[in-house]
This record gives sequence, structure tokens and C-alpha cells, in this order.
Amino acid sequence: MSKPAIVITRELKPEHVAQIQAVAPGYQLYTQWEHPVPDAALADVEIILGGDGPLTHRILNTPKSRLKFVAAHSAGIDYLNLAELQSHHVLLSNASGLHTEWIAEYVIGAILRRVRALDEAEVAQREHRWQHQVDYSGLAEKQVLIVGAGRVGSQLATLLQAFGAHTIGVNRKGRALAGFDRMVATAEIASVLGRADIIVDLLPLTPETAGFFDADKFAAMKAGVQFINCGRGKTVVTAALIQAVKNGQIGSTVLDVFEAEPLPADSPLWDLPNTLITSHIAGQVPHFKTVITKLYLENLQAYLKTGQLATHVVDYANGF
Amino acid sequence: MSKPAIVITRELKPEHVAQIQAVAPGYQLYTQWEHPVPDAALADVEIILGGDGPLTHRILNTPKSRLKFVAAHSAGIDYLNLAELQSHHVLLSNASGLHTEWIAEYVIGAILRRVRALDEAEVAQREHRWQHQVDYSGLAEKQVLIVGAGRVGSQLATLLQAFGAHTIGVNRKGRALAGFDRMVATAEIASVLGRADIIVDLLPLTPETAGFFDADKFAAMKAGVQFINCGRGKTVVTAALIQAVKNGQIGSTVLDVFEAEPLPADSPLWDLPNTLITSHIAGQVPHFKTVITKLYLENLQAYLKTGQLATHVVDYANGF
Repeated sequence: MSKPAIVITRELKPEHVAQIQAVAPGYQLYTQWEHPVPDAALADVEIILGGDGPLTHRILNTPKSRLKFVAAHSAGIDYLNLAELQSHHVLLSNASGLHTEWIAEYVIGAILRRVRALDEAEVAQREHRWQHQVDYSGLAEKQVLIVGAGRVGSQLATLLQAFGAHTIGVNRKGRALAGFDRMVATAEIASVLGRADIIVDLLPLTPETAGFFDADKFAAMKAGVQFINCGRGKTVVTAALIQAVKNGQIGSTVLDVFEAEPLPADSPLWDLPNTLITSHIAGQVPHFKTVITKLYLENLQAYLKTGQLATHVVDYANGF
Repeated sequence: MSKPAIVITRELKPEHVAQIQAVAPGYQLYTQWEHPVPDAALADVEIILGGDGPLTHRILNTPKSRLKFVAAHSAGIDYLNLAELQSHHVLLSNASGLHTEWIAEYVIGAILRRVRALDEAEVAQREHRWQHQVDYSGLAEKQVLIVGAGRVGSQLATLLQAFGAHTIGVNRKGRALAGFDRMVATAEIASVLGRADIIVDLLPLTPETAGFFDADKFAAMKAGVQFINCGRGKTVVTAALIQAVKNGQIGSTVLDVFEAEPLPADSPLWDLPNTLITSHIAGQVPHFKTVITKLYLENLQAYLKTGQLATHVVDYANGF
């Protein structure tokens, strides 16, 4: 039987690769950006570091596949076939939390851009126009609703409270989290949807959350609400969102994720009024390669020693 | 001798005017936007509520002027002739602190817009261009230098610390303030100017601060620094700033105040690269009329009772 193998799917620095090899000296290491795993070795792959849906599927369906552990490089793992991984009893970890503070900073930047009228200023500047009368307010007066509240939501809410904002969180069971003035279960969202000045979508994509923000939800919001999506594009019915922005029900929107990514150049979203489009950058992490390697190493060492993972284990029952 | 008079220079709501009249029943009230003070009554004016440089000068130079108290509506009072007011022993108050949290929100929005690459996203959006690779970082890693640190600076620094940023404050004597990891006296600024990733100018305009940020100061900064001016336009040598942005010494800049306001349509600042221009909006306060009336009433009541002011007294020796 040949040597077991580890595949690293996304580029790391040479020192990171060396660290991984040092922890697992008995394993053949493949680096997809340099020395990709040959077809003949697919059955040897026991560990995949980095999320790659097609490669993972291919390895899992190789006869006599040894795949036991996949460490995704991201918080969302909807690009993996969870049912297939579960049926093969593959251990799966995500990178939830690594992006936490960065997404929180992005969302606060996106909120303040509207609240302090920087968006209006950008337009006036292009026209060399002094515009002292602007539609401004303050974050201290706002009610902010965070839907899909977990680690990121808690960090975001904690910062929002420092500004004096009132924070309401929504998660499946209404589980309490630091930073929130109030928590509500997803089933009860109707009771708070109409109160918020700002709504932040941080939902992961699961069968329950697909199309969660639809025409009915938008209609139940406060007129002129700011809607921000840093969760997953498919948690929103895009056509309903466009309609709600066009008829003024949604006052402004900031979108970082989309039903299809990259967002096609002919998407109507690019030119939607009062809309900022960003290219799935909210969670980008400085020094990401160093940070993700540390997480890989922690779980790799635990796996090699005990056959179990130490942290960031995905619960197949929840889907995240 | 005719009745003493109060002039309110900037529009308030009818209920605010009624509150002021109720506190000072023995005074004739003039509201400049409705019932301006006639020339014949200028000598009767004992109190001016609201900053108006030319009107104040005119009243003060009316023969037998009774002017005793001026309550400016703003934090900066450089539009008043302080020497002239001082020589007539006029009590002067400002509105420092009212704008505090609003300016802090503006500055954090301005910082995050660059740090989280929202400025790059705006450009890409206009071109319908998906740009996943951006020049981003995180506020948590930044050193922020706040020059002219007082109430606003302290509020700003406190919020920056909540994001994990390192805060250095500069004021005249290096007086300690909440929210700062380190304070430095203005005379020692050279020791910290080269360390900061972000520099925020909150200086009032005084003879000492005019032209404070000049070519030498910009040259001493870290290359690529973000420079934000929410103080006064004349604390910066604009030509030197433009040069420093053009040669890349300053990486990006956000300007809310200018040597001349409104900024002329042909100013080169409008089209300066990596620059956001806003029209002196940073300190705009929601419900400002209510807030400023409360401050007027507090000092008016104290003045009528004791001949002295209760709060926000301008020290002519400092100029603020």
C-alpha cells in the first residue's frame, strides 16, 4: 500500500508547507498550485487542507478512497457536498471565526458610509459640487438587526454597542450572544423585522436559509431600511431585493455576496440606485495564509494523534 | 433707556424661541431669519445666541453697545474677532462637544472606507468589474495619531480602541485623555509622526495651528499614510498636501474642511487621486436645534442669575 497523502488545495507560502510536512512526516504532500496530486495518487489522499468542491468529490469517488479529513479554508462550506462527505464519515472542519473581526469592520464601514452621508459626498465630489445639506444621522440612534447571529454577529454587535446602537440578534433558537440587547429565534423574526433601521444578513447557506429574504420579508421591513448582505447571495431573492430598492422600501443596500459569483457584468445590481457592490471581500483577512495554516496545524496534530479534530468541527446535522 | 435685547442669529424652531423668551422675559427677542434686529436697536443687544462674525462686529462697534455675552453655535470660533471681543470683556461660549460623537462616527467611517477597500469597490462598481483582489487591511492592526486631541479626539480614540487600534494623541501639553494609549505634547510630535498609519487632524484654528501640516510634516510621515482633516482647513498647507498625495507620500486622504469654504468648483482637490471630499459635514448633528437650544438656555440662565457662564466658556488666552 502506498504512502498516505495530504493535498493542500490553495496556495500557501513555502514556510507554511514546510510546517505542515514537519507535523506529518509520514505523508506525501501535494500542493495543487505547484505539484498537484496525479490521478494515480487520488486514492492515497487521506487529508485535504483547503476547500475545493470538485476535487473533494473526485477523491471521495475514487475507488478505495482513503479520505478521512477535510479542512475547509472558509467559514461557509456550501460549496462542498455535505451529504456525500457525511455518508463517508469524513471529518470536516471550517474556518469560522477567522474572518470575524474583518467582516465586522466591513459592515461598520458600510453602515457609516450611509449614516454619515459619505455615499452622497462621493456623488457630489464627482460633480465638483459643495453639498452641505445631506441626509445624515448617527449610528447612536439606530436599531440594528443582525440575522444569522453567531461569532461574526456577536463581534459586530459588540462594536455597534460601543457606538451606542441598539442591537437585536436573530439565530435559529434565539441563543444568547455577547453584544446583543435582545435575541430572537428565527421563527419569531416577524416580531422585529419592522423595527430595525439597519438589517445585516450574515446567514450561512443551508436548505432553511435559501431564499430567506424574499418579497414578504422586504415588505415587512421599515420603509427606507438599510440592508447589508455579507452572508451568502442565495439567502436573498435577488429579484425581490431589486424591486424593493426600486420602489424605495429599501433605502440603501450594500451587497458583498451574490447568487452567482463573480457577479456578471450585465447584472442589474451594478447600476441599482443607492447600492454599493463589493466583490466578496468583506471577510478577506490580512496575513490569511499564516492564520489558516495555524488552524490547519492544530487540527492536523489532533487528528494524527487521536483520530479526532480539536476545533472548528462542522456538525453535519446543522450544516455549519 | 430701551429694553435690553437678545439676538438669535441662526434659525431655531418656534418652541425653542419660546423657551428662550420664557427664561429671559425682560428682554426683547430678535430672530434674524424672521424679525432681524433693526439698526436702531443694535445698541440694545446684550446677548447674541449663535455665531455670526459680521453681525457681532457691527453690534460691538455700535456707539454705546451693551454687548456682554455671545454664545457661538459651533466648536470652532475662528470666524469671530476674538481680540475685539476680549477687549470689550464680552463673555464667549462655544458649542464644543455637541459634535463629538458625530465627528467620531464620520472619521471611523472614513478610515474603514479605505482600510476595508470600499473606495476601490466604488470604482470597480462603476465599471461593472468584479475585483476580488483589493488593497485591504484591518483597523485592528493600525496605529492612529490624533492631532488636536480634546473631547472629539477622546471619543474617537475610545471607539478606535474598541476595534483594537493603537491610539496616540497630540495636544498642547500632552494632557492625558481617555481612549489614548499614549499622549504627546505638540512640541514633541516629531517623535510620533513617522509611526502612524492614519493621522487625523482635529486642530482648531489659532495662530499656532495655522499651516501646521506643511511640507516638512508630510515628509516626516510614514509613506502611504491616510490623512484625514476634520479640524480646520487652514491648519493644512493645501499645496503641500496636494504635492504629498501626488507623489504618493500620502496614500489616501479624506478632507471635510478647506482653506476656503465652499470649496471652489475649480479647486484641484476635487479630482485629486485617492481623495474623498466632503462638504464640512463631519460634525453635523441630528436634532441640532434642540441640542444647541439646551446649551443656550443653560448659559443664559446662569448669566442672568450670576453674570457668569455655566459651561463651554472660551478662554481668550487659548483661543478656544
